Amino acid sequence: MKIVRYSIDGSEHYGILGSDGNIQRLKCSPLEALHPSGHVDTLESVRVLSPFHRPRVFGLGYNYRAHSQEVGKSTPTLPVLFMKPSTTVIGPDAAIVYPPDGENIHFEGELTVIIGKEARHVSESDALRYVFGYTCGNDVSDRVLQRRESEYGCLLMGKGYDTFAPIGPVVETDIDPSNLHLITRVNGEVRQNGNTADLVYGVPALIAYLSKYMTLLPGDHIMTGTPAGVGPIKPGDTIEVEIEGIGVLRNRVIASVDAES
Amino acid sequence: MKIVRYSIDGSEHYGILGSDGNIQRLKCSPLEALHPSGHVDTLESVRVLSPFHRPRVFGLGYNYRAHSQEVGKSTPTLPVLFMKPSTTVIGPDAAIVYPPDGENIHFEGELTVIIGKEARHVSESDALRYVFGYTCGNDVSDRVLQRRESEYGCLLMGKGYDTFAPIGPVVETDIDPSNLHLITRVNGEVRQNGNTADLVYGVPALIAYLSKYMTLLPGDHIMTGTPAGVGPIKPGDTIEVEIEGIGVLRNRVIASVDAES
Repeated sequence: MKIVRYSIDGSEHYGILGSDGNIQRLKCSPLEALHPSGHVDTLESVRVLSPFHRPRVFGLGYNYRAHSQEVGKSTPTLPVLFMKPSTTVIGPDAAIVYPPDGENIHFEGELTVIIGKEARHVSESDALRYVFGYTCGNDVSDRVLQRRESEYGCLLMGKGYDTFAPIGPVVETDIDPSNLHLITRVNGEVRQNGNTADLVYGVPALIAYLSKYMTLLPGDHIMTGTPAGVGPIKPGDTIEVEIEGIGVLRNRVIASVDAES
Repeated sequence: MKIVRYSIDGSEHYGILGSDGNIQRLKCSPLEALHPSGHVDTLESVRVLSPFHRPRVFGLGYNYRAHSQEVGKSTPTLPVLFMKPSTTVIGPDAAIVYPPDGENIHFEGELTVIIGKEARHVSESDALRYVFGYTCGNDVSDRVLQRRESEYGCLLMGKGYDTFAPIGPVVETDIDPSNLHLITRVNGEVRQNGNTADLVYGVPALIAYLSKYMTLLPGDHIMTGTPAGVGPIKPGDTIEVEIEGIGVLRNRVIASVDAES
């Protein structure tokens, strides 16, 4: 099932997107219940939003061996985690704002897990029962700031600018995350061509690891890390993250001055 | 003015705490308005909670020179930031849960800033107008996990266990954050004795820096970093963080098995 959040006529709703482009509007958040309201919208008449408003976002570093190699890092001996502030999140077709003093801003296409139920001390074998669904994500990163912060063993602003986490377009609830083809295109050209089968820490391992230390909450996002092929973006570019069985997350990059005008 | 959040008779409220121990109950969140409901509670009859429920928490590393020296780091050339998950936050008198496999868990007493108004592109000279108030915080840290994560330039679980961010007991709204005496005691013995005048990046600089990149939201917490004197805790310890003009944040450390029973 494909879940979307969208706005129409000034109000926001969740819905179930059918293959015919019709959206069965829901009465409440799908994290509470999947209760159709009886109202039907069409995909052409709505603006699709990020799946959830201002979620907690956990990010992974170096979670594909080939990406670790391309950036000169060894494969980590534990999940390498950071958070992206909730204000990084934008929806499909929203603009990634290129910073005025940006020098080396990269795209990172990623499978993104959305937690459905509070999770604490969950085993790998039970972990997928706590997942609401899966969507596409782009962990946009400022490599200069990231490197400067990482020298002190921390990471926030290098991943944390407003608009640096495009998420969407839909949440697919019925899919196996262990073998999904992931492609990132810049202006139509394929730049990343990976598969979640190559994750160092797969989805069950990540949920088990996080929930060993902390309580995962419904709506939490886990961006599972990026495969090889990362590279710079610039204003005017269109970035697409496509994941098999989910869809295409498409965002344009605009200059900061255009965002303010 | 001192603001508290508290529970009484199974419901939660905000209030204004007077020097007589009486609490003027508020109608709504103090981030919306300071509207007394007319009802008065007494401090002895309530359980004081963390000032806000599940806030965004931004933490600072190496923000006092003497602390950077004691852990063998150079003074950073930019604010060294990370996030603590909202689920780390506990209130005064709640228990810090010592992990079952903890080896080297440290206290860190810190001045904690609470944002009052949405802030973006704020100058240092305007920054304090976006502050709601100040409280005490304890940035509890697992040094073993922190070191392992930091080797990969990231930090989350080393600071992110449930209960690893005691915050409170009150939010003081009328105070100058630039020269506040901060003391941390373990079992009554003074272990940290610092002053916010020694912050490498003071409160206005931190708000200006963060808001250059991202939108700060009402209720956001900034834990401003810890002075020299950090050290280990163990089950049975009582940790107190006292800040001049605010009050004393007191938490006991309990073993994980006690938390589960």
